[in-house]
Amino acid sequence: MSAIIAIDVGGSQLRVNVYPPDGTTPKNEERGDTRGQKPGAYDRLTAVIDKAWPDEPVAAISVAVPGPVNPRKKIVIKTPNIPEWKNYPLAKKLTDRYHVPVFLGNDANLAALGEWRYGAGQGHHDLVYLTISTGIGGGVIIADRLLEGSRGMAAELGHVTVLPDGPLCSCGVHGHLEALASGLSIVRYVKEKIAQGQPSSLEDWQPSSENSDELTSKEVAKAALQGDALAKEAFIRAGEFIGQATADFLHAFNPTIVIFGGGVSKSWSLLDEAVQDSMRRHVMAPAYLDDLKIVPAELGDDAGLLGALAQAHLRLAKD
Amino acid sequence: MSAIIAIDVGGSQLRVNVYPPDGTTPKNEERGDTRGQKPGAYDRLTAVIDKAWPDEPVAAISVAVPGPVNPRKKIVIKTPNIPEWKNYPLAKKLTDRYHVPVFLGNDANLAALGEWRYGAGQGHHDLVYLTISTGIGGGVIIADRLLEGSRGMAAELGHVTVLPDGPLCSCGVHGHLEALASGLSIVRYVKEKIAQGQPSSLEDWQPSSENSDELTSKEVAKAALQGDALAKEAFIRAGEFIGQATADFLHAFNPTIVIFGGGVSKSWSLLDEAVQDSMRRHVMAPAYLDDLKIVPAELGDDAGLLGALAQAHLRLAKD
Repeated sequence: MSAIIAIDVGGSQLRVNVYPPDGTTPKNEERGDTRGQKPGAYDRLTAVIDKAWPDEPVAAISVAVPGPVNPRKKIVIKTPNIPEWKNYPLAKKLTDRYHVPVFLGNDANLAALGEWRYGAGQGHHDLVYLTISTGIGGGVIIADRLLEGSRGMAAELGHVTVLPDGPLCSCGVHGHLEALASGLSIVRYVKEKIAQGQPSSLEDWQPSSENSDELTSKEVAKAALQGDALAKEAFIRAGEFIGQATADFLHAFNPTIVIFGGGVSKSWSLLDEAVQDSMRRHVMAPAYLDDLKIVPAELGDDAGLLGALAQAHLRLAKD
Repeated sequence: MSAIIAIDVGGSQLRVNVYPPDGTTPKNEERGDTRGQKPGAYDRLTAVIDKAWPDEPVAAISVAVPGPVNPRKKIVIKTPNIPEWKNYPLAKKLTDRYHVPVFLGNDANLAALGEWRYGAGQGHHDLVYLTISTGIGGGVIIADRLLEGSRGMAAELGHVTVLPDGPLCSCGVHGHLEALASGLSIVRYVKEKIAQGQPSSLEDWQPSSENSDELTSKEVAKAALQGDALAKEAFIRAGEFIGQATADFLHAFNPTIVIFGGGVSKSWSLLDEAVQDSMRRHVMAPAYLDDLKIVPAELGDDAGLLGALAQAHLRLAKD
């Protein structure tokens, strides 16, 4: 029986897990730093793979990439964290080196696949997954198949316009969901309101050994849970736009489950009510809500790796 | 060889076409009035089917319904034009009567399928279809399959929120695309501006034997083509929201073609530039536009019938 190597190329970490042919408990786990802004990301990746390589035969390598990939042409279209990888033939390079089939997928798409096969979405045929962290990504399963689109760029659910002429998104367009509900935009909202004189316990927030260098949504969540009104308001506002967009996704995909993952959704209690209220207000017919589940993700930081594992099993079964 | 009976249940007309096993030229066409607000719509439908029934064997009946259907359970969930048909087992009733397989589909979904198989979308694997008439409907093909969703209610593309707190939609929610860009909303915009004192050749519009009882988007289009500034503005405004929503659909589905059908899109020259400009402004990356086609529909009023025909062929091939 052959092992499967699943790889998650993250913004800061490269993770390489070796899985047995049947199971989700890795036999080996290795990590390295991505340092994607510096040349040599590919060599840093193969060094970790070499270290992780098992004694037994390997059936496939499956890679989750933080950016759009073309799954048919098997190239990385681009990834903001690794500028070198632009129209980059990652699969071919890895196949030439390791002589096994290599599969690529976008990390949010694969996280959706992971939740569907091993996590909160088990048993569902039509699933929407939204990951809310620094940015907002998405993944969609339709009739038990991953939605990829003509060039692998489908399910970019963070980039629906929720407020025309709203704040600028990381992609350069105004008013996308990511510009109004990501971790960065929650922090931006708090900072703007403080600058306008709204009182908050975060007014005097300073970097220290106990927290990060810059104010993050994690600190805002902590303040909200301690009762800070502005911090709570920032999450409720984000939740309202997430709910509005979720209604769009119900109308587009008619799923039976919507799963929220990513760092911000670890503060799900701060978002849940606002998301659900807003979703109900924007949905066109109650039938979309019958039997609909709205749940937090289950796989946490391993979603990308387990999604890559699921992708390997699905592709190997097909070939 | 057996014939296929394709049916389009329209708001005003029932159309029943008999197609040969291989071809899109009907061997027989029959029509009747829907009069869906009056009881007996099912009997009126079977009367037209009886009249159209051919001498040779029939392989299947395939019906396009103007509302959501559950294609797996084969029931009409509801249709605004025929209030009687609520959770209505139309397929079972027709099978019991005619002893042939019966397939149901939403009319906009089937129009997408028709354009994909016989019209503007031939050769494309990933397609978005938008029909703009009194209301706005949609259909999506993903990897050569019709997107239906868990209950057949997917691809309701007229009901994405494009302007939070915008005008009221027919479904009761504020700011959906349909409320800002349908034929009815174009007329409403013109009327509102005239009431506010904006000059227009449509100020003195009166019902007559040459036009309809009420001002429609067709008359607004005519005025726009004759140079009326307000009428032009109304189409441009609608086009801007359509373009914004189209960018959402590119991010969601990553198609290679977007097809515009329906009555309003017969005035495509009034919309084209505004739609494309707005789409380009709202899209997150130019890669979505590479090789993307934006085209008017080709099948006109027969889109539903030909979509029903395509559905019959696909289902018969599968069974």
